[in-house]
Amino acid sequence: MFQLSNLLKNPIRWLGSDGELSDCVLSSRIRLARNLVAAPFPHAASQRDLGLVLEKVTQAAKKSHALARAAYIKLSEMEKVDQRFLVERHLISEDLTRDSHNRAVVIGEKELVSLMVNEEDHLRLQILLPGLALDRALEQAQALDGELGRGLLFAYHKEFGFLASCPTNVGTGLRASCLVHLPALVYTQNIGAVLQELARVGLVARGFYGEGSKVYGDLFQISNATSVGKTEQEFAEAMTAILKNVRGHEIQMRERLVKGAAKTKTLDRLWRAYAALSYCRLISFEEAMQELSWIRLGFSLGVKFDHLALAKVNELIVLAQPAHIQMHAGRELGPRERDSVRAALISRTIKGKGQ
Amino acid sequence: MFQLSNLLKNPIRWLGSDGELSDCVLSSRIRLARNLVAAPFPHAASQRDLGLVLEKVTQAAKKSHALARAAYIKLSEMEKVDQRFLVERHLISEDLTRDSHNRAVVIGEKELVSLMVNEEDHLRLQILLPGLALDRALEQAQALDGELGRGLLFAYHKEFGFLASCPTNVGTGLRASCLVHLPALVYTQNIGAVLQELARVGLVARGFYGEGSKVYGDLFQISNATSVGKTEQEFAEAMTAILKNVRGHEIQMRERLVKGAAKTKTLDRLWRAYAALSYCRLISFEEAMQELSWIRLGFSLGVKFDHLALAKVNELIVLAQPAHIQMHAGRELGPRERDSVRAALISRTIKGKGQ
Repeated sequence: MFQLSNLLKNPIRWLGSDGELSDCVLSSRIRLARNLVAAPFPHAASQRDLGLVLEKVTQAAKKSHALARAAYIKLSEMEKVDQRFLVERHLISEDLTRDSHNRAVVIGEKELVSLMVNEEDHLRLQILLPGLALDRALEQAQALDGELGRGLLFAYHKEFGFLASCPTNVGTGLRASCLVHLPALVYTQNIGAVLQELARVGLVARGFYGEGSKVYGDLFQISNATSVGKTEQEFAEAMTAILKNVRGHEIQMRERLVKGAAKTKTLDRLWRAYAALSYCRLISFEEAMQELSWIRLGFSLGVKFDHLALAKVNELIVLAQPAHIQMHAGRELGPRERDSVRAALISRTIKGKGQ
Repeated sequence: MFQLSNLLKNPIRWLGSDGELSDCVLSSRIRLARNLVAAPFPHAASQRDLGLVLEKVTQAAKKSHALARAAYIKLSEMEKVDQRFLVERHLISEDLTRDSHNRAVVIGEKELVSLMVNEEDHLRLQILLPGLALDRALEQAQALDGELGRGLLFAYHKEFGFLASCPTNVGTGLRASCLVHLPALVYTQNIGAVLQELARVGLVARGFYGEGSKVYGDLFQISNATSVGKTEQEFAEAMTAILKNVRGHEIQMRERLVKGAAKTKTLDRLWRAYAALSYCRLISFEEAMQELSWIRLGFSLGVKFDHLALAKVNELIVLAQPAHIQMHAGRELGPRERDSVRAALISRTIKGKGQ
């Protein structure tokens, strides 16, 4: 049987440090929203409808090549903390956990491919890749979409395109998003202007857990606001170009942080982050993310932190989250205990003593 | 010729970590104020008078056993930064540096004995010992007083005792003071009540640089407010008893910091102090003192900091001061440069790579 805790042993592939422009773009995500003609949209559907959708999607998924050896998990069979674990792992949305009846997730072998069933739409398929790789993610998403479309009849309108619960998803049903690390733009207070510019070109920047969530560790989720008016390829290409531009700004600001008199102050801040993470005995998720942000910045400025690889730092961004800490400990923990377990995990990792 | 910078190579003996109750009382100081009948008090004296006093005191000091191999330094022959260096070393007062004409200091071989000439009084002799050692310091001060008194005629009134510029010093001319480290009383916010209690029994608590100065690193100068009404021995004994009592409170609070749930929080704070001092690239004197305070507290709680001896931590309290940092660098430095040199000195010392 599939054990969630096994996921904890997997490297977080979508945070690999070898992706393109991964000094700034941690990961790229393509999500396609699809609905079956066989049932009303989830918000209007009966449990029977939803059960039917789940059954049909499961059948189609089992025939898919991209989902070979996938895990099929019903939300109703999971504890709240385990659901939260999957949210933290970017495999499901918080919305999916609101009502667990006939809601499910299908997780591909390496966690790079996943399907949510009966979230806002019947089907949301996701490809999550490290670095700036929207084009490749789109290819894979389209391939999976094609495979699933062989067994499922999707709601499609000749003029509008794919139909979806929310008007912003009608058309291609596509959301392209990137997890972007912008510490120097934040530190030099240039981030406001950059976010305004993004809004102007139809992109939105969200916090770490998506819409309405807080920014942790200078990490922003940047995605397209609507999905009409362009082909999928056009979306991906336009967004790739914009993100390269944002990264250009960020790198420029990073360089400024190590020029002249600023350099010592920056090194002071970087090494103090390394020190705090190495020696803390209690640390909140928020503080951990902030200090990890400085460490990531340090790597991109060429600072060598003893024993420490960037991939480990990236992984900690995921592993330091509350539900991950509890999965790591093997039991539910109060906030204070989490801060303690988190500190132990992080300091061991930063000191290079493994996790 | 005597070189001030040579002092930098001396261990700071009055901060030795082997003194009695030195987990709390860093050092004990006895100061005796004396004036010669041969001249008016300094504030009313002409430069000729002051010159005469200086000559007489110097002659008497040169015959003293306790001041064998002492250095004789005229304030007028020193740079401001060097004067400041001696203030930081507790060898002269700030008052002595206000006007340098005919002002001088005599520094005994190990810096445990010193004389200020023409400060507020013609003569102020000082014995400075590690730990709680007011009785021993008093004995040595009296011996030196006796030696000097053979060659000098002190202003003495049968009824009032030794005369001095300031009424609070008339009588024995004695000030007994201890440099006391009270981090747990500060942290647990019990320090206010303790300071009030001290005032009630005729003691005053001052900051790191004496009257009106700021408290750094939870270090307080505790001394008697007046010098009449008791013999020198009675002063020293009463104060010793009170300080043992204050230390009792402090130790009780320290124990509370490592009991139950408080322990992890305390260890977190201690190790973060160690981390910051090990890895900083810029550090102000104030922050350094605060973090060193935590480290000292850690030692008294039995924490083993790798490679680090308490004596080194105590020395840093002196060596981290602005004029010491400049003496260490061999030149005058701006505030920012000092913060940088201080950080380098401290992190090398804390990591056990020597100074």
